[in-house]
Amino acid sequence: MPIIVQKFGGTSVGDPGLIRNVARRVAKTREEGNQVVVVVSAMGHTTDRLVELARAVGDCTPEREMDMLLATGEQVTIALLAMTLKGMGYPTVSLTGAQAGIMTDNAYTRARIVSVDEKRIRRELEQGQIVVVAGFQGIDARGETTTLGRGGSDTTAVALAAALHAEVCEIYTDVDGVYTADPRLIPDALKLDRISYDEMLELASLGALVLQARSVEYARQYGVVIHVRSSFNENQGTLVKEVSGMEESRLLSGVAHDINVAKIGLFDVPDQPGVARHLFKALAAEEVDVDMIIQSWMRSGKNDIVFTVTRDDLPRALPVVKRVVAEIGAAGMDYNDHMAKVSIVGAGMVSSPGVAADMFEALSNENININMISTSEIKISCVIEEDEAIRAVKAIHARMIGR
Amino acid sequence: MPIIVQKFGGTSVGDPGLIRNVARRVAKTREEGNQVVVVVSAMGHTTDRLVELARAVGDCTPEREMDMLLATGEQVTIALLAMTLKGMGYPTVSLTGAQAGIMTDNAYTRARIVSVDEKRIRRELEQGQIVVVAGFQGIDARGETTTLGRGGSDTTAVALAAALHAEVCEIYTDVDGVYTADPRLIPDALKLDRISYDEMLELASLGALVLQARSVEYARQYGVVIHVRSSFNENQGTLVKEVSGMEESRLLSGVAHDINVAKIGLFDVPDQPGVARHLFKALAAEEVDVDMIIQSWMRSGKNDIVFTVTRDDLPRALPVVKRVVAEIGAAGMDYNDHMAKVSIVGAGMVSSPGVAADMFEALSNENININMISTSEIKISCVIEEDEAIRAVKAIHARMIGR
Repeated sequence: MPIIVQKFGGTSVGDPGLIRNVARRVAKTREEGNQVVVVVSAMGHTTDRLVELARAVGDCTPEREMDMLLATGEQVTIALLAMTLKGMGYPTVSLTGAQAGIMTDNAYTRARIVSVDEKRIRRELEQGQIVVVAGFQGIDARGETTTLGRGGSDTTAVALAAALHAEVCEIYTDVDGVYTADPRLIPDALKLDRISYDEMLELASLGALVLQARSVEYARQYGVVIHVRSSFNENQGTLVKEVSGMEESRLLSGVAHDINVAKIGLFDVPDQPGVARHLFKALAAEEVDVDMIIQSWMRSGKNDIVFTVTRDDLPRALPVVKRVVAEIGAAGMDYNDHMAKVSIVGAGMVSSPGVAADMFEALSNENININMISTSEIKISCVIEEDEAIRAVKAIHARMIGR
Repeated sequence: MPIIVQKFGGTSVGDPGLIRNVARRVAKTREEGNQVVVVVSAMGHTTDRLVELARAVGDCTPEREMDMLLATGEQVTIALLAMTLKGMGYPTVSLTGAQAGIMTDNAYTRARIVSVDEKRIRRELEQGQIVVVAGFQGIDARGETTTLGRGGSDTTAVALAAALHAEVCEIYTDVDGVYTADPRLIPDALKLDRISYDEMLELASLGALVLQARSVEYARQYGVVIHVRSSFNENQGTLVKEVSGMEESRLLSGVAHDINVAKIGLFDVPDQPGVARHLFKALAAEEVDVDMIIQSWMRSGKNDIVFTVTRDDLPRALPVVKRVVAEIGAAGMDYNDHMAKVSIVGAGMVSSPGVAADMFEALSNENININMISTSEIKISCVIEEDEAIRAVKAIHARMIGR
């Protein structure tokens, strides 16, 4: 019997009525002759409520205890969904991350799955049970509860689909699939029937928050087919899978934007070997992820270094940069935490020159100034001012994708 | 360094401010040179809220899934209390029932502790940690989460105190200790400095809900000294321990009442051997706990059987009794679910005749009709109408204990 993994996020299980909806959906998949493993997140705003409670007891929120706290959210959902399915007559068992064999490293609040021991799930499936698993959480080698970070339930679902060799990993969300742009912004954005892992990865990491990037990496690594679809209707969604050349009909898969961007500049950096290495090593030591980097030789013998980080990482980045400025004898530094990144993604663009020029022209027609540019084989990103981001997406979509 | 186990119930950890109170109390005990293990319940009405959620998804509330659901309540509290203590500068670690080594049988929703593997707690204590343990929950031999039933956190605390050979198990509650009667009812009820396990057991099982009866049994079995005291002041509370004859100064320890009582009567039961055995075996098979039993030979060759059960058990008891009435050929049955039990408890009464007479006279002076009487060496109980219970307690306390 084929195995199907289905993942329902927080908005899909936000209240008891929605949980009954999810149960009917799961039951239908069971009735169609599949073994079903369901991965669920915490109900609606549960996680936010727990974080508020933690803040209310004090300023100290140690990561181990945060994971102990947050893991309760998913545990509530699995129990409620399992009860609902049993009430409908379907043998069902709920499993915490630990019971489901989700083994992680011990990086609390952002743990990585290191292996999946799927024996317990297989045994339950063989006994005819629907298995409901708590997403977002796992257990480390010492038996401590860990969580996988924001969007971690997607990764739980993909990891289980890989371990169980599932037919498909269905990710249910509040949109119909992956669109060529955020449909709330661009009314005539198009739904994609399929998209390759690489393109999805670029879109995920660029701020089109349909899937967590790590879950897409995991899916690519193990060849898991992901089906992104709506929990509120029966429409076919978007398949994320290895797309062969024959299937690639579309030049561009989408326009993404990300406003969680801050820009940091160092001025008059002495032109000595090892300066950049020193800076970015110091940032890495503080776990600051650096995205785009530009080094420019504008004046003789001196140069500027400009780079971007997520806005969330800025408080950790700034003291490091200030220290490095002093150490290397740069003239000074500056930052802007109201930047955005607008990107076009498409596997077809590698063989189409002119795409970049098209994008820059769309922006220049709108008088939008480009701060930084980076390109890869399937992506072109421009850093612009935050308040111009939406206008930029609309202009690019209209010129390059829209009808 | 002495080990002290402290247990704080739901009302003591009901909101972030109260949790900070508890943390200060724990810290003080640590500062006084003790190793501290803290057992906490779910915050305030968390458990009721979770039960409501379960009811909202459907009528089916399988016990395994209820335990999965309810165990989250304590897990939230341990994380919050551990954060608070760490924020105050005290090394602290939170442990679920499973992590704390609370091994139970697999009777979901009412599991019994079968052993405590205290190695992890000892290791944490030796490393200077304050250990915060989730009460009410454990893990069975197959790794399933179980809960211990209402008041189970008391049992968790006593079991840990026994396993760790703690100096004392402090049970913090919203009253100052164990009183000779419910102080909300009897303003001049006296606080007891100490009480024996046997007396406390009678009071606990009779409806003076300061301690869960099972926790007292456990304490008696392992000689754990319990100190019942208030979480809202520093007053000395009541010690529950083996009380020697020398220390026994008080004839009566208290007057308890219990309104969770229903009475069932069978009429004209044929006078044949084995009839009572048949009835009570059938009730036991449905897990109905029968409390008091009276068999009366009022008419020739026939007799009535009257017994009491908790009001909660009545829905399970009635169909059994109706079936048995038909099987044994009794004339009929009747029940009253508005009964109460009023009891006096005192280790001294065994050597004092006249105590029972005194109690009966207190009731008769108030024109309160006694339905059933049962006695043990340290207790006399009378079943009366529910609406006379409070008047009965007042009369008995005033005559036999009050000044």
